[in-house]
Amino acid sequence: MTRKFLEDAFAGESQAHMRYMIFADVAENEGYPKIAKLFRAIAFAELVHARNHYRALGNVGSTVDNLQKAIEGESYEVEEMYPVFNNAAKFQGESEAEKSTYYALSAEKIHEELYRKAKELASQEKDMELEKVFICPVCGFTAVDEAPEFCPVCGTKREMFVEF
Amino acid sequence: MTRKFLEDAFAGESQAHMRYMIFADVAENEGYPKIAKLFRAIAFAELVHARNHYRALGNVGSTVDNLQKAIEGESYEVEEMYPVFNNAAKFQGESEAEKSTYYALSAEKIHEELYRKAKELASQEKDMELEKVFICPVCGFTAVDEAPEFCPVCGTKREMFVEF
Ligand SMILES: [Fe+2]
Ligand SMILES: [Fe+2]
Ligand SMILES: [Fe+2]
Ligand SMILES: [Fe+2]
Ligand SMILES: [Fe+2]
Ligand SMILES: [Fe+2]
Repeated sequence: MTRKFLEDAFAGESQAHMRYMIFADVAENEGYPKIAKLFRAIAFAELVHARNHYRALGNVGSTVDNLQKAIEGESYEVEEMYPVFNNAAKFQGESEAEKSTYYALSAEKIHEELYRKAKELASQEKDMELEKVFICPVCGFTAVDEAPEFCPVCGTKREMFVEF
Repeated sequence: MTRKFLEDAFAGESQAHMRYMIFADVAENEGYPKIAKLFRAIAFAELVHARNHYRALGNVGSTVDNLQKAIEGESYEVEEMYPVFNNAAKFQGESEAEKSTYYALSAEKIHEELYRKAKELASQEKDMELEKVFICPVCGFTAVDEAPEFCPVCGTKREMFVEF
């Protein structure tokens, strides 16, 4: 039962973290920079809580294990979840949901592939060779080392991409 | 049904984001800085997906609405969720879970109070007056403007606090 509760708490903290990150941007745009700062700081506190629960669950493994978990999650989203959700949104004529699930599906395919490469290398105790990773802020499209002139999924310009 | 699917997708993306943030730190510590970078970049892509789903749900309101939602979430955790989870962990002799739920409960009380202050001000179209927010990286304890010499909840030193 404690295990189930920790899983629920991890889910709750992860979603609170995410909501506060979203709310911070809204506050910033509405002219409340200090409230935005509060949201971002508390979002980090929720990350600390989520991490503690995740550790208490014994879920943090080695990088190879973590990559395997990541591959399984992405693969489930690519093979099952997003195709079904996207199809349902189309069927119900929900165009916003159709778009948000299509964007996610497109990116998860790339994520799965990148994590597979990473796992292959980490299994031989090698790091990846990438210098930079670029993320499209509109659809989550993910590119290694160079961003495309326009996002192939949603058309967003290179200048808008977020660099890691 | 599309609504339920979007809610599930928001929950899934939020947890994927959080796992990748945790896995990034592990990769960093194990000597895989590039894999750590990949995890952090993809964590941001999952944030983009979660945000798109959240918007498609029509859940993003004004800052006053968002603060009200935040207060309700924190209040539920303070009044119901964490007291029950913490009690169950004690009852089952799960000391790690007892600690992680106690840490969270302690911080959520402060979060609720801070969000109430913020909402009062935002309702009058005023921002907060804070300069900085400090978060304890071990328990999520949250302090405005000045960090304590030692965290009152877990004893962590001031120098370790994360500043926003
Ligand atoms: Fe929390
Ligand atoms: Fe992904
Ligand atoms: Fe895009
Ligand atoms: Fe995603
Ligand atoms: Fe909180
Ligand atoms: Fe602390």
